[in-house]
Amino acid sequence: MPDLISREIQLVSRPQGLPTAANFALVEAKLELLKDEWVLVRNLYLSVDPYMRGRMNDLPSYVPPFELGKAMDGGAVGEVIESHAEKFKPGDLVTSNFGWREYFMATPQQLHPVSREIEPSIYLGALGITGLTAWAGLNLVDVQAGDIVFISGAAGAVGNVAGQLAKLRGCEVIGSAGSPEKVEFLEQDCGFDVAFDYKHDPLIPTISLAERLHLAALNGIDVYFDNVGGEMLEAALSALRVNGRIIACGGISGYNTAMPQPGPSNLFNITTKRLTMKGLIVSDWLGHHAEFEREVGDYFRDGKLKNKQTVVVGIDKAVSAFLGLFKGENIGKMVVKLE
Amino acid sequence: MPDLISREIQLVSRPQGLPTAANFALVEAKLELLKDEWVLVRNLYLSVDPYMRGRMNDLPSYVPPFELGKAMDGGAVGEVIESHAEKFKPGDLVTSNFGWREYFMATPQQLHPVSREIEPSIYLGALGITGLTAWAGLNLVDVQAGDIVFISGAAGAVGNVAGQLAKLRGCEVIGSAGSPEKVEFLEQDCGFDVAFDYKHDPLIPTISLAERLHLAALNGIDVYFDNVGGEMLEAALSALRVNGRIIACGGISGYNTAMPQPGPSNLFNITTKRLTMKGLIVSDWLGHHAEFEREVGDYFRDGKLKNKQTVVVGIDKAVSAFLGLFKGENIGKMVVKLE
Repeated sequence: MPDLISREIQLVSRPQGLPTAANFALVEAKLELLKDEWVLVRNLYLSVDPYMRGRMNDLPSYVPPFELGKAMDGGAVGEVIESHAEKFKPGDLVTSNFGWREYFMATPQQLHPVSREIEPSIYLGALGITGLTAWAGLNLVDVQAGDIVFISGAAGAVGNVAGQLAKLRGCEVIGSAGSPEKVEFLEQDCGFDVAFDYKHDPLIPTISLAERLHLAALNGIDVYFDNVGGEMLEAALSALRVNGRIIACGGISGYNTAMPQPGPSNLFNITTKRLTMKGLIVSDWLGHHAEFEREVGDYFRDGKLKNKQTVVVGIDKAVSAFLGLFKGENIGKMVVKLE
Repeated sequence: MPDLISREIQLVSRPQGLPTAANFALVEAKLELLKDEWVLVRNLYLSVDPYMRGRMNDLPSYVPPFELGKAMDGGAVGEVIESHAEKFKPGDLVTSNFGWREYFMATPQQLHPVSREIEPSIYLGALGITGLTAWAGLNLVDVQAGDIVFISGAAGAVGNVAGQLAKLRGCEVIGSAGSPEKVEFLEQDCGFDVAFDYKHDPLIPTISLAERLHLAALNGIDVYFDNVGGEMLEAALSALRVNGRIIACGGISGYNTAMPQPGPSNLFNITTKRLTMKGLIVSDWLGHHAEFEREVGDYFRDGKLKNKQTVVVGIDKAVSAFLGLFKGENIGKMVVKLE
């Protein structure tokens, strides 16, 4: 086999605060031939996700930091080009964690076969890790019919699926998002009962976040699906009712702060209202993937669940797509389509 | 029956920040005769507890605020003086929520009979509401043999019992307290594996709380029993291991702050380490009281559990006993003995 050159995106310096394009480099790399069974894959779509920001810091956490001067990892869906493994043949569609690059060589154990019956990018969205995250969050705190569920970052990849699934469970669902267009998406496309623009209230420009949430949820909330942390968590702690639950899934408001920010001043509501707050890392739920695919896949095939995505084209646009996550440029899942 | 005069302590103004003696008044009140069955009780011991501070604010919470110009409520143990109810006879020992006063008249439903076999004040301590709180906290997050349990405010009424019960469950137990005398009490009397003085490290005066906890718990902690909130909660969030649990029981560090204080800056550890934080209000656990009395009463009778208390004598000292809670004047349960 002749040398195969793949373009890949490397982290070349660790960002302080908000990353910039200068922290990354698009590099041509030669694929190394593996020893035994191997499969050559061409990526079709790459996933860019807010959690990747944490991996750019050189700190121990639930996933190791990205190494400088190496291709970053991340979710991807691609098609098999060549296979020396019995389990795969050219043309097969596979998901993997070999994102941020055009081609890669992997062992069969590193690949997850998926069906061609649906559009490949959906395996990075509603039927992928972000969909699994949404589903896991609802299960983590046992969301039930009748619960009033508030979701922040609701127009994001996890939030919109969490809201749609909560509606399918018979919940009342409230969402916050960062633009009128996103609010419309939540109410019109995702079936949220109420959504509001946390950045700007057209009627009462001076209203606080806590007041804004109160107006959207006059009876309070039972569940808070937190994707953002910060001030919204404080507002939710005020709105939660006795025995309420918090899914601590994401904290995008704090991912790019160079210094740690103070937590909510009303955290003692956890005691007085007997709240339960649980942290969610989706990798703990990979063992439930088949169950998730069955349940959520059925919803999708029956037209009960929509996959919404924002598609950016070209690996050279992957970094700006990633940075766009922190400017709220995506509605639904942000994916990078390779040409 | 002639008029019966009872001295009682009333809240006469709502404290801003730390309460002072001027917020309270010792008042002589005439007991009102009840209609049907009634029992006249003379209190032997009154309970003063940090949670009462919250009831002095005029804000909705899990218990209604104290009313100005009325006797405050609170735990008490007393003996029946006169009974017009079949269930009670003079000399019976009863617990009630009619604290902060010398005598009271109650319906039989408002009284809980207890045995004379043990010293009455213990029903306000290890075998009372604070003991139940400790026991409930361990059950709330399913503390198991082998867990490394860290308890703040460990020399207090709830903390010392929580630590003793955790030792009986086979845990490794670490405690923080506010004086060398309390540290000795925890290590010598309560069987804590390690205890430390959070106010002062004799060897390294400049050490931070997080570093202090790290030195006491080099392998991290699995469970944090929080009685204080504030900076100690931040230290515990750093020390907790993956899948750790937090019992959000008390926040005495913040009870007297006039303005809300910022929460921990590292709250996102809840997500990255998949922590569970649960709020505890003991009134939710009153239905488990018989189970608690059986289990913890057996420990006590078998000499496996000690009741430690700080006794202040005289109803005229009740306010200063209460205020002493916030200066750390108590070791174990603070009680007021009536003369």
